[in-house]
Amino acid sequence: MLFHVTMDVDIPRDLDTGARAELVAREKAYCQDLQRQGRWVHIWRVVGKYSNVSVFDVGSTDELHDVLWNLPLFPFMTVTVTALCPHPSAL
Amino acid sequence: MLFHVTMDVDIPRDLDTGARAELVAREKAYCQDLQRQGRWVHIWRVVGKYSNVSVFDVGSTDELHDVLWNLPLFPFMTVTVTALCPHPSAL
Amino acid sequence: MLFHVTMDVDIPRDLDTGARAELVAREKAYCQDLQRQGRWVHIWRVVGKYSNVSVFDVGSTDELHDVLWNLPLFPFMTVTVTALCPHPSAL
Amino acid sequence: MLFHVTMDVDIPRDLDTGARAELVAREKAYCQDLQRQGRWVHIWRVVGKYSNVSVFDVGSTDELHDVLWNLPLFPFMTVTVTALCPHPSAL
Amino acid sequence: MLFHVTMDVDIPRDLDTGARAELVAREKAYCQDLQRQGRWVHIWRVVGKYSNVSVFDVGSTDELHDVLWNLPLFPFMTVTVTALCPHPSAL
Amino acid sequence: MLFHVTMDVDIPRDLDTGARAELVAREKAYCQDLQRQGRWVHIWRVVGKYSNVSVFDVGSTDELHDVLWNLPLFPFMTVTVTALCPHPSAL
Amino acid sequence: MLFHVTMDVDIPRDLDTGARAELVAREKAYCQDLQRQGRWVHIWRVVGKYSNVSVFDVGSTDELHDVLWNLPLFPFMTVTVTALCPHPSAL
Amino acid sequence: MLFHVTMDVDIPRDLDTGARAELVAREKAYCQDLQRQGRWVHIWRVVGKYSNVSVFDVGSTDELHDVLWNLPLFPFMTVTVTALCPHPSAL
Amino acid sequence: MLFHVTMDVDIPRDLDTGARAELVAREKAYCQDLQRQGRWVHIWRVVGKYSNVSVFDVGSTDELHDVLWNLPLFPFMTVTVTALCPHPSAL
Amino acid sequence: MLFHVTMDVDIPRDLDTGARAELVAREKAYCQDLQRQGRWVHIWRVVGKYSNVSVFDVGSTDELHDVLWNLPLFPFMTVTVTALCPHPSAL
Repeated sequence: MLFHVTMDVDIPRDLDTGARAELVAREKAYCQDLQRQGRWVHIWRVVGKYSNVSVFDVGSTDELHDVLWNLPLFPFMTVTVTALCPHPSAL
Repeated sequence: MLFHVTMDVDIPRDLDTGARAELVAREKAYCQDLQRQGRWVHIWRVVGKYSNVSVFDVGSTDELHDVLWNLPLFPFMTVTVTALCPHPSAL
Repeated sequence: MLFHVTMDVDIPRDLDTGARAELVAREKAYCQDLQRQGRWVHIWRVVGKYSNVSVFDVGSTDELHDVLWNLPLFPFMTVTVTALCPHPSAL
Repeated sequence: MLFHVTMDVDIPRDLDTGARAELVAREKAYCQDLQRQGRWVHIWRVVGKYSNVSVFDVGSTDELHDVLWNLPLFPFMTVTVTALCPHPSAL
Repeated sequence: MLFHVTMDVDIPRDLDTGARAELVAREKAYCQDLQRQGRWVHIWRVVGKYSNVSVFDVGSTDELHDVLWNLPLFPFMTVTVTALCPHPSAL
Repeated sequence: MLFHVTMDVDIPRDLDTGARAELVAREKAYCQDLQRQGRWVHIWRVVGKYSNVSVFDVGSTDELHDVLWNLPLFPFMTVTVTALCPHPSAL
Repeated sequence: MLFHVTMDVDIPRDLDTGARAELVAREKAYCQDLQRQGRWVHIWRVVGKYSNVSVFDVGSTDELHDVLWNLPLFPFMTVTVTALCPHPSAL
Repeated sequence: MLFHVTMDVDIPRDLDTGARAELVAREKAYCQDLQRQGRWVHIWRVVGKYSNVSVFDVGSTDELHDVLWNLPLFPFMTVTVTALCPHPSAL
Repeated sequence: MLFHVTMDVDIPRDLDTGARAELVAREKAYCQDLQRQGRWVHIWRVVGKYSNVSVFDVGSTDELHDVLWNLPLFPFMTVTVTALCPHPSAL
Repeated sequence: MLFHVTMDVDIPRDLDTGARAELVAREKAYCQDLQRQGRWVHIWRVVGKYSNVSVFDVGSTDELHDVLWNLPLFPFMTVTVTALCPHPSAL
């Protein structure tokens, strides 16, 4: 079941450089782990923004919330979820 | 080069049933032709809306405009384009 | 799996009275049928609006779209879908 | 008498971890107490947000304000209230 | 129990002059009847708009919806309801 | 001459508890003084918000601005003013 | 007492050319009459819009509403009123 | 003196095909004439929209309004004007 | 050439009282100097806001930007500029 | 390939004066370097704002993101990107 998710990131300036780097590294590892599991099926950067557009393939809304809530950058993100379904014109 | 496109469709009620069916059929054929060419790479239905979220892979902004402008349903669509680029965490 | 859905209804004035009554009756029957099936679990009227707030329990986003798309009043509704999941404080 | 309430939570980062944990625990106890009293009749998490959608059953608007104003997390919430009434199609 | 209600009126131009006058007269009678009953406690015109700001005193949200839904001009109004309660500084 | 005024209050967290209590007490006294003078004719709490909806009866816009500007909580308020006039249906 | 008023005009296309010309002429005469009376103290065109920004000097909100409600183009305008008062830096 | 102008075009469906073609042709001629005069210095199509982004070089706001008001498609456009000035980093 | 300008002021609370007073005094002197030069032709206070509505008469957009950019309170203002021109109904 | 970009700048007040000056100087050098390369083809100041409107000519969306992401002021900017293409009326 697919969901379209946008994530707008805004890391506070007063976060220590080391803490920030560690957070961003954990986010990347977490993201790539979910990609390998086939649950985070697409991630693109929005040009000119610290934002991404993603598509998740999950078994339930509960699973999706769990995945998003545990994003290392979640406290610094605005997340928007849109439910998708197959389009009748899709091949 | 990827672009994220949303299309919200609003076909006027006073359009003749036959004209509407013919238009929707042409839209589907046009869409599937572009999918086969690898230019319309994703199309999903937004749940509860007469809308889709799509991703196009085109060589230029000019080519993208040409593709969108010629959508049979274009006169009845609100189209929103967002430029994408590869995300550093994408595998 | 639960989804929160709002439906704002705007039936065109020029719809024939009989057609309107028939449409509203079909909407009611359709809604009550889904309630009996346990898929449309809550429906409330918003005070002062021709709108409702509903909660659906469905197996997939695809099933939800199918239910909404086939609402007799769908062509005259603005539908907004929000994915829900259990709240950790819920008993 | 039913009211639809959304609560968007934004706890300041500079709140001490202990104070935060204590606040969240008090919120949970307060919420569950009201559920047991039959006044907080539904609470769902919004997927991808630190937000909930709730339905309250209270005897008056005054009682509802009192309940909301005394939420331990109230100072860190944006609360939106919508008056509901029975829907003619509800079984 | 008090509710703040705004009503923005937009009567279609193509409504017959007689029908319009009759509708506006019925609205006025309906409004004054509710004022006499003590349920429509305040009504003010918004300067420069075909809108009013009103305060209703009703026993329930259900009663309020019934009052609003039966306004003769309801089909041509955008109605917005806000729940009120006594202010601690009010004398 | 009547004006509809909404006041949304947001007192900064870092304000000292004593200063805050003193400010809120001064606001209440100021408000009640204006009520006794017949200039602040209505004040209601908006359910679920640190906001009020008020109606002022003043001799001029200049007088209204003076009253609002001197509210002890003015620096922490968003104030919205709407000019009112008698409604032709008011009894 | 001064009020800032914006008027956005949108005359329906299906209005007969003669009726339109007559309406616009009456609007102009009405406007100039109020200017001569010193009640419509400023009127400027907004560049690129069928809109104006105006300042009225009236004795009451009731008088202002009366002036605006009787604008020949009022049924085709969106009017926005903002109460003004003298600025402490004005000479 | 430069102004940034966006034009969103929405030609009504019920305009006769010939009238539409004639209007679009006049718009093009008008636009190119102003380009040749050096007053309409840039015009770009917005991808996926019946809109353009333009830059005008005019001697006054009055001149700009005159140019825009006389666009053959002006009655079917939403025009937005932003005043520009030289940027200190421009070469 | 006239421009309509709104200025919404938000001076940070942590600005030292003396610095604030000095800034406000400089703003007033700057404003009155421009009024004397005939360039800041109108300034009104918006009732209930720390905002003003102004009209400037300048020779160019460049001159206007220079005037606004050098306002002592500019760093704490949100400034909105609208180009004006003579209205055909103005006397 | 052209893109329209707006940049709204908001440098935090607590940034050290020297750091700020150095940042602004680097931004200017970076901007002028890109102008010399023919990639940042237009930059205008928006009157009354710490904002610019720009046009970039780049080979891909990826290149554009790289250019924007590396702006020295990027962490303090809100950037909005709109894809452009040639207009059929452009000479």
